[in-house]
Amino acid sequence: MEFVSGQTKKDVVEISDILTGDYEGRDISMNGAIHTIRDMGEVAFVILRKREGLVQTVFETGAVDLPLKDLKEAATVEIQGTVRKEERAPHGFEVRLKKVRILSQPKEPVPIPVGKWRLDTSLETKLELRPIALRNIRERAKFKIQEAVVRGFRDYLFLQGFTEIHTPKIGAKGAEGGANIFKLDYFHRPAILEQSPQFYKQMMVGVFDRVFETAPVFRAEKHNTKRHLNEYTSLDLEMGYIESFQDIMEMETGFLQYTIELLEKKYAKELSLLEVKLPKVDQIPQVRFDEAKRLVSEKYDRKIRNPYDLEPEEEMLIGQYFKEEYDADFVFVTHYPSRKRPFYAMDDPSDPTYTLSFDLLFGGLEVTTGGQRIHDLDMLKEKMETRGMTEEGMEHYLMIFKHGMPPHGGLGIGLERITMKLLGEENVRETTLFPRDLSRLEP
Amino acid sequence: MEFVSGQTKKDVVEISDILTGDYEGRDISMNGAIHTIRDMGEVAFVILRKREGLVQTVFETGAVDLPLKDLKEAATVEIQGTVRKEERAPHGFEVRLKKVRILSQPKEPVPIPVGKWRLDTSLETKLELRPIALRNIRERAKFKIQEAVVRGFRDYLFLQGFTEIHTPKIGAKGAEGGANIFKLDYFHRPAILEQSPQFYKQMMVGVFDRVFETAPVFRAEKHNTKRHLNEYTSLDLEMGYIESFQDIMEMETGFLQYTIELLEKKYAKELSLLEVKLPKVDQIPQVRFDEAKRLVSEKYDRKIRNPYDLEPEEEMLIGQYFKEEYDADFVFVTHYPSRKRPFYAMDDPSDPTYTLSFDLLFGGLEVTTGGQRIHDLDMLKEKMETRGMTEEGMEHYLMIFKHGMPPHGGLGIGLERITMKLLGEENVRETTLFPRDLSRLEP
Repeated sequence: MEFVSGQTKKDVVEISDILTGDYEGRDISMNGAIHTIRDMGEVAFVILRKREGLVQTVFETGAVDLPLKDLKEAATVEIQGTVRKEERAPHGFEVRLKKVRILSQPKEPVPIPVGKWRLDTSLETKLELRPIALRNIRERAKFKIQEAVVRGFRDYLFLQGFTEIHTPKIGAKGAEGGANIFKLDYFHRPAILEQSPQFYKQMMVGVFDRVFETAPVFRAEKHNTKRHLNEYTSLDLEMGYIESFQDIMEMETGFLQYTIELLEKKYAKELSLLEVKLPKVDQIPQVRFDEAKRLVSEKYDRKIRNPYDLEPEEEMLIGQYFKEEYDADFVFVTHYPSRKRPFYAMDDPSDPTYTLSFDLLFGGLEVTTGGQRIHDLDMLKEKMETRGMTEEGMEHYLMIFKHGMPPHGGLGIGLERITMKLLGEENVRETTLFPRDLSRLEP
Repeated sequence: MEFVSGQTKKDVVEISDILTGDYEGRDISMNGAIHTIRDMGEVAFVILRKREGLVQTVFETGAVDLPLKDLKEAATVEIQGTVRKEERAPHGFEVRLKKVRILSQPKEPVPIPVGKWRLDTSLETKLELRPIALRNIRERAKFKIQEAVVRGFRDYLFLQGFTEIHTPKIGAKGAEGGANIFKLDYFHRPAILEQSPQFYKQMMVGVFDRVFETAPVFRAEKHNTKRHLNEYTSLDLEMGYIESFQDIMEMETGFLQYTIELLEKKYAKELSLLEVKLPKVDQIPQVRFDEAKRLVSEKYDRKIRNPYDLEPEEEMLIGQYFKEEYDADFVFVTHYPSRKRPFYAMDDPSDPTYTLSFDLLFGGLEVTTGGQRIHDLDMLKEKMETRGMTEEGMEHYLMIFKHGMPPHGGLGIGLERITMKLLGEENVRETTLFPRDLSRLEP
């Protein structure tokens, strides 16, 4: 009988092996995709694209077991050669080629210059050719930064005693009312795609006290803007036994601090590739919604048109205000008006026009919505009644309050948006692997 | 201006604080839900449920600032009291109560005895009352084990140089043909819910060489069995530059070994609560599909009815065979017939009736399907043609092969299934937080 033992073979080396070991002058095997070929006559530089970065290999006529013309950009290969220090090459070394085994040949030249440093192609083209465009080193680096954000979120919350959950995305009724919800047929029953794990994470607070989920959410909003997606990855947390919604903002700030550190420690290569200047997160100013409106109105001489809502331009100006006045990249705007928040938001007992809630703005864009939730059944029912809501279909949600829920609250972070702001991008599609918007269902 | 600094206050203690610090005789504050109350007359034991487990608090008449009758099961409280060693209590300590602050009172008694050690309630009732039933200590422990599996998967793959990706769940066309797919209306265009991230993870192999995703998948299968769900969490990986599909089985075995170690190290409490005996994963036997059928047919005197398919009973018997003959909990069954595998599966060059693919059986149940994929465009097109498939709607997928793909393969693991087998459960719904099946859309 044959057995699988879980031993991964190591007959090829990776970039990090060479950087951490003594490989000077040694012959190695290595695989990768041919990113670019620069033919200088006597020699050619054949640049390999590997998951950890680029490797310069040197093709000298006569020294290699096949002719240069057999090598094509986008081919995948396994090479053998000698490692040599070379300051001018990526990572400070190059590989002098001896043998090349071609693993696959492309059928056509790539339609966009992915081998270039900067992929100067329209967003439209990049998205249409997404699977290829992402082979550009800087394009793909964006999604390593995104990876770090999710990783930081999970790792930090594990340290804080949170439990990870997986809640269903197909449901019977929407958490926050009927509009903007994708509908589907579920074995001849009407169903919806969840626009948030809100009800489920609250249920699970009654079980694990602190829970989080990193999963897709679906919004059938007909917005066609640079910051909206119809499907995105939401980083959600919910925590019980809070003293106030201040605890939730502390938790988010802790997550941001942890993640910035993670980025600096483990994603330095990508930060440098993308020339990212990380935001300051040592302390984040917090300001009331009404106060923020007033400050911006005064400083920028702008009339307050609607005291109960923030226009995107106002958000932007709040960001600008706190950058100018406090050199702050983030700002917590607190106490949003009750009428603009869902029914489960806890009203401020000192003025129920407002809620114990917040948004986090990053460079003037909302990247998080959070707050304390109502945990008392009577208060919840009363608010539902005031809003003309029915309890029908809400039985499982209301059940948890019948049987005891601690004071609790939570938040949801838009992964693509926070990545976009981290990278200084202008369009959220730049930091979405395969965006879904009003016109885009493919790739 | 007020600032949020990310400092989390620590005026309440957790179980692990007490277990790792010197708290004997000290007064502490602690919060939790009242799990059970055992009134012994002079004293009462008020058991708190906290995220890390149960805590015994002792209510002595006269010693506490409120009467016992004010305390109700399922209330949430913050208590003050003195920590005392007590061997017979959970975790070896108890808290002698001085003050109790009630955070919330339940409105009704809980409808099922969640405070009991074993929740002897039908699965149907448990699922109907899921948000409450999960408050049982053993019920919730199942989902800590599940957490460990996902965590082990991610952490191991990060160590192996994989990149985490987030691919869209709404799409234009299904990866594996038209049947069993949920359909929805996407702004007046027909759309589907992805039944697998297959095409996307292959696209991303061309970008990052090695990728993984942990996300929901959707299958509109009309099965009503103990092992099928219509929505489940799939642990997917895909890796490039493989020598053969053997590399993928090695990677999965490595993940299993890593996860078992993680469970032993960090989830010992839950393993003990659920009396779990962890499976052996030091080496996993592998056997060809046709050979497995033959072995089982011979040993258990069972006719081979269909040489190209495995019946569930046959899977079970293969599991039994390898348990009996090799004391193996897992077995890789390799070389599935081509006609039972999707078009992108790599046929075995030495006999194209079979594919370079595998399933992993755990206790006789399929928990993983994987294999090598075709990476040559012509081969792929030829196979599509043979199967009468059209290239329409597949342009973005086929694009990657046009521009060079390395030999690659991958797998998908059903999270709820592998958790079910780890825990020795008979029904996958036991290890699904909120199952979606033919009849269940709520909670």
